[in-house]
Amino acid sequence: MHTLNIRVYYEDTDAGGVVYYANYLKFAERARTEWLRELGFEQDILLEQNIAFVVKHVEMHNNAPARFNQMLSITSHIVELKGASMTFKQDIINALGKVLVTVQAKIACVDLVAMRPRRIPEAMLGEFSRVI
Amino acid sequence: MHTLNIRVYYEDTDAGGVVYYANYLKFAERARTEWLRELGFEQDILLEQNIAFVVKHVEMHNNAPARFNQMLSITSHIVELKGASMTFKQDIINALGKVLVTVQAKIACVDLVAMRPRRIPEAMLGEFSRVI
Amino acid sequence: MHTLNIRVYYEDTDAGGVVYYANYLKFAERARTEWLRELGFEQDILLEQNIAFVVKHVEMHNNAPARFNQMLSITSHIVELKGASMTFKQDIINALGKVLVTVQAKIACVDLVAMRPRRIPEAMLGEFSRVI
Amino acid sequence: MHTLNIRVYYEDTDAGGVVYYANYLKFAERARTEWLRELGFEQDILLEQNIAFVVKHVEMHNNAPARFNQMLSITSHIVELKGASMTFKQDIINALGKVLVTVQAKIACVDLVAMRPRRIPEAMLGEFSRVI
Repeated sequence: MHTLNIRVYYEDTDAGGVVYYANYLKFAERARTEWLRELGFEQDILLEQNIAFVVKHVEMHNNAPARFNQMLSITSHIVELKGASMTFKQDIINALGKVLVTVQAKIACVDLVAMRPRRIPEAMLGEFSRVI
Repeated sequence: MHTLNIRVYYEDTDAGGVVYYANYLKFAERARTEWLRELGFEQDILLEQNIAFVVKHVEMHNNAPARFNQMLSITSHIVELKGASMTFKQDIINALGKVLVTVQAKIACVDLVAMRPRRIPEAMLGEFSRVI
Repeated sequence: MHTLNIRVYYEDTDAGGVVYYANYLKFAERARTEWLRELGFEQDILLEQNIAFVVKHVEMHNNAPARFNQMLSITSHIVELKGASMTFKQDIINALGKVLVTVQAKIACVDLVAMRPRRIPEAMLGEFSRVI
Repeated sequence: MHTLNIRVYYEDTDAGGVVYYANYLKFAERARTEWLRELGFEQDILLEQNIAFVVKHVEMHNNAPARFNQMLSITSHIVELKGASMTFKQDIINALGKVLVTVQAKIACVDLVAMRPRRIPEAMLGEFSRVI
């Protein structure tokens, strides 16, 4: 499990006064990226090896809106780990502990040269299975 | 059924060379907005009446990436129409007719003063049931 | 001179109820891209030849805000054309003809392999000097 | 003077492999917001009092691109402080201390009810003149 705190800036909101719905997916990706980094994996180095992670499927449920200037916590869990994909469940939580938005994202590992799915590098699989 | 054509600009892409995943949700919303407009409903006028549409639940599946400078078509269908919500199924399609991404979005009508669900205005329900 | 019409969507606005200031630069770039396209130049093909255009300097002045759901016109002029750069002056105008925002952008042509400035392709220079 | 560190995520980049030019203005605004917060001013509370800050004029110069996954520092100075506006000079700096991008932004204080310029609250003017 991993937690990232994120501040809501003007750029994240819309004229409805709340966070624009697509932007929750940005928050979710920042959290996944920071978790990978904590486990020792930098995505720019993976890119140089032509390894990328692609979001194949995402499901998002909005219980309540996040608002301008709020501090949010994004908690991330891995709920499924396979050889070439993994599925994260992520909660976007306000300062009172209320879950505003949930995101479930299935990420596939791809080879950018062949442009097709590939096995997640063994070192990553090892780390993920340790923290799952 | 409604179709909107959208060009992929630099702003929509990321360092992976493809459309950033959250941005497909922007395309989907532009298409829903233009369909509403064609049916005679302008969301700025609805906002003045404290009526807004909120995306409660969204599911997105990526079959293949859209790329910089491509022209895409977004087709939209209403797959469920209820008194206070409606569900759209939308396909993001490239120039060869391949479905790259599918989005299913459940939209709820909300009263912005009471901040709670409300019935979709009758005139809209009438139009939607006509085009469903 | 070139004109592009752009609709303001939720994604473009912020909690202040107006277009988020950085997003005017997106509108300006869409307009420059469409002008290039009209002149016969597609930036994805240029990218394959390792030719890109980089915004080196930009100046933006906000006279008045654009709002959700407005239809805007972006007019573009080339005010300076040099061998390796060109400067656009662009106005973002509302439906009443009022200039809301002005953007002046100096664009440099770069070779993406050498990562350094290069001469604008002759065919482009020819077209630009024709429309300046 | 104030410094904010910002990580470059996929959302910030474009198909050119670098930070999309408009997004530097997002980074600059996050830095200004965090500085205000450190000085004790929260913009959501100001909004409730119908006080907002609007970017009237911005000038940005790109010396070199920022790239995916880099950690950047944004330094901010106030270079002019007037009764109803202030001008920030901000540098976006990479880990080696190189200034990649400079932003100069003139911010005006506005009354959101009257929709016109107003004097910056005295408490803010006091704090700003202390740190200038």
